[in-house]
Amino acid sequence: MSRPAPGPYVSPPSLAAAALPEYVARYGASVLDLDRAVAAAPGPPDLIDLTHGDTRAFLPPDWALRGFDTGAADNTEAYTAYRGSASVREVLAPRVAALLGRPVDAARELIVTPGSQGALFATLSALVGPGDVVMLADPDYFMNERITRYLGGQIVRAAPVMSADGLLEFSSEDMVRIAAVLPKVMLLSNPNNPLGGVYTAAAVEQLAAIARAADATVVVDQLYCRLIFGAATYTHLSALPGMAERTITLLGPSKTESMSGYRVGLGVGPPAVVDQMERVLSLASLRTGGYSQQVLRGWLQDDRDWLAERTVAHEKLRDEVVERLRAIPGVAVQPPAGSSYVFPDCSAVDGPYGDDDHALTIAFKQAGALVSPGYQFGPAGRGRFRINFSQDHDRLSTALDRITGVFR
Amino acid sequence: MSRPAPGPYVSPPSLAAAALPEYVARYGASVLDLDRAVAAAPGPPDLIDLTHGDTRAFLPPDWALRGFDTGAADNTEAYTAYRGSASVREVLAPRVAALLGRPVDAARELIVTPGSQGALFATLSALVGPGDVVMLADPDYFMNERITRYLGGQIVRAAPVMSADGLLEFSSEDMVRIAAVLPKVMLLSNPNNPLGGVYTAAAVEQLAAIARAADATVVVDQLYCRLIFGAATYTHLSALPGMAERTITLLGPSKTESMSGYRVGLGVGPPAVVDQMERVLSLASLRTGGYSQQVLRGWLQDDRDWLAERTVAHEKLRDEVVERLRAIPGVAVQPPAGSSYVFPDCSAVDGPYGDDDHALTIAFKQAGALVSPGYQFGPAGRGRFRINFSQDHDRLSTALDRITGVFR
Repeated sequence: MSRPAPGPYVSPPSLAAAALPEYVARYGASVLDLDRAVAAAPGPPDLIDLTHGDTRAFLPPDWALRGFDTGAADNTEAYTAYRGSASVREVLAPRVAALLGRPVDAARELIVTPGSQGALFATLSALVGPGDVVMLADPDYFMNERITRYLGGQIVRAAPVMSADGLLEFSSEDMVRIAAVLPKVMLLSNPNNPLGGVYTAAAVEQLAAIARAADATVVVDQLYCRLIFGAATYTHLSALPGMAERTITLLGPSKTESMSGYRVGLGVGPPAVVDQMERVLSLASLRTGGYSQQVLRGWLQDDRDWLAERTVAHEKLRDEVVERLRAIPGVAVQPPAGSSYVFPDCSAVDGPYGDDDHALTIAFKQAGALVSPGYQFGPAGRGRFRINFSQDHDRLSTALDRITGVFR
Repeated sequence: MSRPAPGPYVSPPSLAAAALPEYVARYGASVLDLDRAVAAAPGPPDLIDLTHGDTRAFLPPDWALRGFDTGAADNTEAYTAYRGSASVREVLAPRVAALLGRPVDAARELIVTPGSQGALFATLSALVGPGDVVMLADPDYFMNERITRYLGGQIVRAAPVMSADGLLEFSSEDMVRIAAVLPKVMLLSNPNNPLGGVYTAAAVEQLAAIARAADATVVVDQLYCRLIFGAATYTHLSALPGMAERTITLLGPSKTESMSGYRVGLGVGPPAVVDQMERVLSLASLRTGGYSQQVLRGWLQDDRDWLAERTVAHEKLRDEVVERLRAIPGVAVQPPAGSSYVFPDCSAVDGPYGDDDHALTIAFKQAGALVSPGYQFGPAGRGRFRINFSQDHDRLSTALDRITGVFR
């Protein structure tokens, strides 16, 4: 169980092999080839894109652009420390601490990154080397697997099971299996992308226990941790006993606040890992845009009412999307307890496309609705597709008409 | 001479070993340790930072913030293709073609990156694998060596010689040696950072001839190619016969236009390399900030008068800096033909610090002027230091007083 100190290891990757071998076998092509086929498929001029949120339906808060403009006018932070402006980190640390329920040291435990993707890449580069065992949830954000493979990590998967109320737990078989392989890194999003499920307190505690026993580091993508519906409660992993020193939490305003266009995110983790993340970041892009960093001064501050309103609006859309999808014979979908994703299961559908998520995606696109095919999220994504329902209501409704039409 | 197709290879790196072994031997520490010692050294509250340009002395053009604000208000390009907005690339391609003197295909040969650093990292990740031979100029931008070592490349160095009028050529001995090792990649900045020298047409043609003969790819960082003084002429490498298909040119508005705070740059290269760069970029940060990309719509357009004014202002500062530094007994400095850097040579100085660029940097800092120590730029940087003279005139003058005082 003694491992070398964390370092930014990387290995000769093959991005073509970032494909899922299972899908290569099934389709005779790599994931990238499948993606290219989707991109090349014709769609109508009024194609409705449900692969990401519509930032014109849910606008970024006013303080975002104001913060950028103030930063650009002041113009004293075009060049910041690679890990981000010291004063921005000072402002954020107590707010992040309040969100996570644990102390956060602004100087040593916080790094500002180009989106939470920048934090994900820097974290994994700091932790994963050739042959290192990495636990991934299945399904999960497609870049988790792609970056892990790029770095030469060995993947073991655990499949969360979603309850009728949108909560997630792993099976005890999966947890026993994961504990036995002594993963170096455990990586997952919570709420899960694409399921939208929220891990129960028991599930999070179980992950923490395995991490402590295996001396593993946990990377938890909490991009959607503020967009939680109804009575669901959210458990912050790094606040559990002994976990702050072995957890890197990824945060950012790209989703709930619709601020993807600013490319800012945060990593929160133990100082040694944050130091290595900073070195990777300095190589990859020096630093996060100096003016974009300034928008974070407005984040996580006095926004209870704003967040409640945004959450209710998304919950309504969720309910409508779930109802509409359930009306399609053979389609099963659980209402997610968080995020803005649904991940319907078409494996019981009869029809020309069956449960082929790639063929279905192309058929949806031709009908005028662009979704994310299930294969992108791992083997458990087969026969499913992802909708981001952070959309204008009427456009979403039209897209659902088109999707429904494909099944007829 | 047959090599595998370009792929984003990476190797187990040691960032501590990104140090220059020569300096480790000399100082008993890594470059990072030396840098930390500089960072930890005390400086007065009114420390004047000459390690980068002052973006308040030379402001970004008005169109920059206007472009960002328009992009944020319009808000249709928060999510662009990973290689950047198609319409931004369409706008830029003809302007970049005019600058470089060669055709540029907007769809296949252009990628928008988080600063030119993002383009540098993506390019080298696409081209350099463990053991690959990479030619670096010595001295050159310190990240060139750091990224090459991170990727496991083997470094061979060629030392440009600067003429009295700030032009650069390699010795024929160096060129024969480089040609003989058949480098896979040749990497250099032109104008050279830190020398500020501009490679002559003959030098650029010689590099091109070696690249063609060795089937090498050339990566040329042209960040400063528009800030050229007096009668000096600039030769664009990718416009030479047979070079467009083996050259990646890195460009951006961070320096001449003082737009570092927006973090946007460009890579221009053959389609196969640009495809690989896009994959690396997608892993590292998905894409360049969507709104920041929009500022490029204003770049390289109708700015002849603006550029002439900015060039003259920098030329004046250059002349004054060179004169002031030459007045210090033992200090030698050539006036650069481009960029905003001077790289004075202190190797003949008597005094408590001798030619120790690390000790000198700390002494300057204590006196109130922060410079970049020569060791950062390679073995040829020993006994030198870099000043970025894109500064407010009076502050620069005060900093030069302080530097001069250290030599007394």
